Amino acid sequence: MKVDGTHYRSIWPDEDPRSVSIIDQTELPHHFVIARLKGLEEAARAIETMQVRGAPLIGATAAYGVCLALRDDPSDAALEAAIARLARTRPTAINLRWALDEMAAAVRNRPRDERFATAWARAAAICDADVAANRAIGENGLSLIEALAAKKPGETVNILTHCNAGWLATVDWGTALSSIYMAHDKGLPVHVWADETRPRNQGAALTAWELGSHGVPHSIITDNAGGHLMQHGRVDMVIVGTDRTTSAGDVANKIGTYLKALAAKDNGVPFYVALPHSTIDWNMSDGLAEIPIEERSPHEVTHMKGLAANGEIVEVEVSAPRSAAANPAFDVTPARLVTGLVTERGVCTASRKGLLSLYPEHGDE
Amino acid sequence: MKVDGTHYRSIWPDEDPRSVSIIDQTELPHHFVIARLKGLEEAARAIETMQVRGAPLIGATAAYGVCLALRDDPSDAALEAAIARLARTRPTAINLRWALDEMAAAVRNRPRDERFATAWARAAAICDADVAANRAIGENGLSLIEALAAKKPGETVNILTHCNAGWLATVDWGTALSSIYMAHDKGLPVHVWADETRPRNQGAALTAWELGSHGVPHSIITDNAGGHLMQHGRVDMVIVGTDRTTSAGDVANKIGTYLKALAAKDNGVPFYVALPHSTIDWNMSDGLAEIPIEERSPHEVTHMKGLAANGEIVEVEVSAPRSAAANPAFDVTPARLVTGLVTERGVCTASRKGLLSLYPEHGDE
Repeated sequence: MKVDGTHYRSIWPDEDPRSVSIIDQTELPHHFVIARLKGLEEAARAIETMQVRGAPLIGATAAYGVCLALRDDPSDAALEAAIARLARTRPTAINLRWALDEMAAAVRNRPRDERFATAWARAAAICDADVAANRAIGENGLSLIEALAAKKPGETVNILTHCNAGWLATVDWGTALSSIYMAHDKGLPVHVWADETRPRNQGAALTAWELGSHGVPHSIITDNAGGHLMQHGRVDMVIVGTDRTTSAGDVANKIGTYLKALAAKDNGVPFYVALPHSTIDWNMSDGLAEIPIEERSPHEVTHMKGLAANGEIVEVEVSAPRSAAANPAFDVTPARLVTGLVTERGVCTASRKGLLSLYPEHGDE
Repeated sequence: MKVDGTHYRSIWPDEDPRSVSIIDQTELPHHFVIARLKGLEEAARAIETMQVRGAPLIGATAAYGVCLALRDDPSDAALEAAIARLARTRPTAINLRWALDEMAAAVRNRPRDERFATAWARAAAICDADVAANRAIGENGLSLIEALAAKKPGETVNILTHCNAGWLATVDWGTALSSIYMAHDKGLPVHVWADETRPRNQGAALTAWELGSHGVPHSIITDNAGGHLMQHGRVDMVIVGTDRTTSAGDVANKIGTYLKALAAKDNGVPFYVALPHSTIDWNMSDGLAEIPIEERSPHEVTHMKGLAANGEIVEVEVSAPRSAAANPAFDVTPARLVTGLVTERGVCTASRKGLLSLYPEHGDE
């Protein structure tokens, strides 16, 4: 999507010298900084430190990480080491594993001198496929927003989202936000409630920045506020992304998503989850029991970074200095709370039956 | 309760010259600062700027605010002006209105030269009554914790709380935290999950500071995390305070409380609300329709204050600079989600019938 009138993806290859550029998301919303990943280790660290985040973008970055490793050493050992290094950067996102498997399959039986070029092309194809999938997700989600708009002609459709499932979480368009961009571009009166999404504030920092850069009306709210807004009829729909969806339709997403799903259910507000097929984990069915939940540093809870009045980025301690903190990064929303899954092939119920209606090729898994 | 071994209340009178001292809660948890309120306007501003907060402490501060006004001018006009000024400081807390009514009733028919002394004594009595009520609430809540502890001998009882309903929210003991202090002092193994409570972080700043100062084991969590912890059996009980409870048992409390109540219900975790009788609004029954919800400044959402590495308190912007923000400060938890109300007279169901079983004198209201 656009930043100050220029179209950007969130990741792109550089040809000379071969490297990979990303938008450093740890600098947003205060500074728009492009970072160059020059090797495997930089790619792995970009994922770990969340310079890139969002399940699809993590997958794309990992794919390019494999390329950068093969650029320097196309051996089997280097390939395996690169995959092992990248696989342990983040535990929850299924796309990471998926992208690494794709890369391994593409290059494993290739001669060494063709491996880099093959990988480079495959990583680009993964990125292009992500963009195409997100565009399709957006088109399918758009019909849901149009249906809501038709019910209240001339009035604003208020959509709540949690964390950032926008173009910064993918290669372009986003998952949850894709349909919102399309609705806005079509002239539908949409307004987004952006949960700030503590502890890392992806909603206030990234979703709000994205929407603002594109001109979509939105308001930042605390993660606490969504239930109250739903109780008072001020939310027409919730749409979020996901880091992993089980074959039964359970959805792992940023911590706090489950609370919004409960509030949506309690108030009759439709709760949608947008995802590409690469996010579906066909090997898991019980999300609560099976999906590993990343526990991140307590420091993310006790400290916050922001822009001081003097223009400097400053980190401040925001809690009692001697207190412990716990920081689970994701939670699982059971399928029973999900109105529908919005995929690149259409919208389905959050169930094995629903998913198989769109992905019949997985029927025997 | 104690701060570094010295017992404090959150508010106390000074005799010479007549003024009122408070702990400035906007400085916590980084600095322990005592502020002196020298007149009506300072008392009103202390409430507005949240140097004091928490429904019972707001009531106590308003009572002393009336005293300070009468010290300077004991006329009917000054009394009415003081009540009007204090009444508009915060819209949600019912105790504010209750305390002002108490003060007006105490002095209105008194000769002018007795008004200050009468008010001064009445304000002290309001404070002492609050302490006694909170001690009784704690004793009644303690039996609930003891019952949970008896079910898992030797194991820690994990209690989640939202915002600050501790001694800093009252004159002493607290409401929700009172029973936790008692359980801890009795040697029961309790651990508190303290929701940080955005946007003002009362949980991370005040609840964690209070519990730490007293030695109660606790962990700060984001407001997003509680549902996940409940899904995994890591919360045995939720207990919160309230700013206003309707005669039907609907509970207004800090924004986000409703989301925790939904999660508690969904996971079979008991959800208790602790309150003194002054918090009950017998004139209201439908909390969602009737309780006014304060909308506070967007600045509280977009900016955060904290302690920088250089030891200074710094305010930083934590969201996209051009984005709007909305900031409703309270929400209403419907009675159907509340397991019980813990009052100074005992524990009852969250219903008119339950409340009347403890407060039969309100049966004809």
